[in-house]
Amino acid sequence: MREAYHVELEQLAQHLAGMSAQVADAMEQATKALLDADLALAEKVISNDAKVDDARAECEEQAYALLALQAPVATDLRTVLAAIHAAESLERMGDLALHVAKTARRRHPDPVLPEQVRTYFAQMGDVAVKLARQTQEVIQTKDVEAARSLESDDDQVDDLHRHLFTVIMDKEWPHGVAAAVDVTLLGRFYERYADHAVSVAKRMVFVVTGKMPGYGPDEEL
Amino acid sequence: MREAYHVELEQLAQHLAGMSAQVADAMEQATKALLDADLALAEKVISNDAKVDDARAECEEQAYALLALQAPVATDLRTVLAAIHAAESLERMGDLALHVAKTARRRHPDPVLPEQVRTYFAQMGDVAVKLARQTQEVIQTKDVEAARSLESDDDQVDDLHRHLFTVIMDKEWPHGVAAAVDVTLLGRFYERYADHAVSVAKRMVFVVTGKMPGYGPDEEL
Repeated sequence: MREAYHVELEQLAQHLAGMSAQVADAMEQATKALLDADLALAEKVISNDAKVDDARAECEEQAYALLALQAPVATDLRTVLAAIHAAESLERMGDLALHVAKTARRRHPDPVLPEQVRTYFAQMGDVAVKLARQTQEVIQTKDVEAARSLESDDDQVDDLHRHLFTVIMDKEWPHGVAAAVDVTLLGRFYERYADHAVSVAKRMVFVVTGKMPGYGPDEEL
Repeated sequence: MREAYHVELEQLAQHLAGMSAQVADAMEQATKALLDADLALAEKVISNDAKVDDARAECEEQAYALLALQAPVATDLRTVLAAIHAAESLERMGDLALHVAKTARRRHPDPVLPEQVRTYFAQMGDVAVKLARQTQEVIQTKDVEAARSLESDDDQVDDLHRHLFTVIMDKEWPHGVAAAVDVTLLGRFYERYADHAVSVAKRMVFVVTGKMPGYGPDEEL
């Protein structure tokens, strides 16, 4: 039983690594679509989202089968449940990339972002995608050191997000209310994406090592 | 085993009903704090959020124990996993009520909402709280009919939310960018709360009946 459990858990982990790559690509492309007002790329992200949803359903089925057939207990049980939670967060990250792409499409051919805030989004996009790719790396290399920098990367997104708000709220914001509303929601999408990425990576460290970095296993990340 | 399973599942369901009541109260109070610029009430919601987090951790522990000791399979297994997902969504609903309360506190003693949009938030708050209370009712009465109106209530929040955006985006919005940003984020908090409430109620219908209303059990709600 133990061996079958470990083989199946490894398959599930590889599935989650694949999902991490999918949602990293989605956010990378959505950010490019946003920055370059690239409609074709936005459409690509939008049509690809169904694949992320399918991948999540497959991960859940795999996890259910593992629970039903192996009936794991203690740490093994928590590991499978962490994988189920991770799949849910990854799907949500895909949704957030989708929201970014839809915003780019809605305003096309106009750019969504005033010049003044472009670099914020370029940077938030970079860090968000990096976080998702780190998750993939944690799973594939079992190198939990790769997860160490996650907290500080997430802090970076939070800092960018906070600073972005001071720019929008500034009395001299000259781009009007509609642009401020778009920028506000977009900022929130990146912030949430980064939060979920950190949560997934930590859960995957748990899946790989049986220990949750910096948190008890049941604490909300 | 079957009897122990059903007794423990019923306890878990009652726990989730309690969480539904907590997050319904939180959103009701947060909305009142927002509408009346009531600082004491906002503080109450903020300090109570830790109780929701604790309740979620307890629900998860109960679910883990159920899985470890009873090793349910097939529908029974999916039922317990639906309960775990429901607990996660309920905690998220608590967080969203917390965000509303924090917004009210941040602007105190100024009101956050321009007069023009107050009724939108009063209505979104009513429907959001109603959705959470319906979840509680579904669990306690096992009356799945109570869940039927959930979709249309959620549509109502979406309609209010969409309409709210047309008000903010209107060229004659006279309240400035800062108010527009607050209203945008608040609108999003209510919309997400309602989405989660519908998702929880459907999962609880599944927990109570073994059938997911209108969806396959693995589809993202």
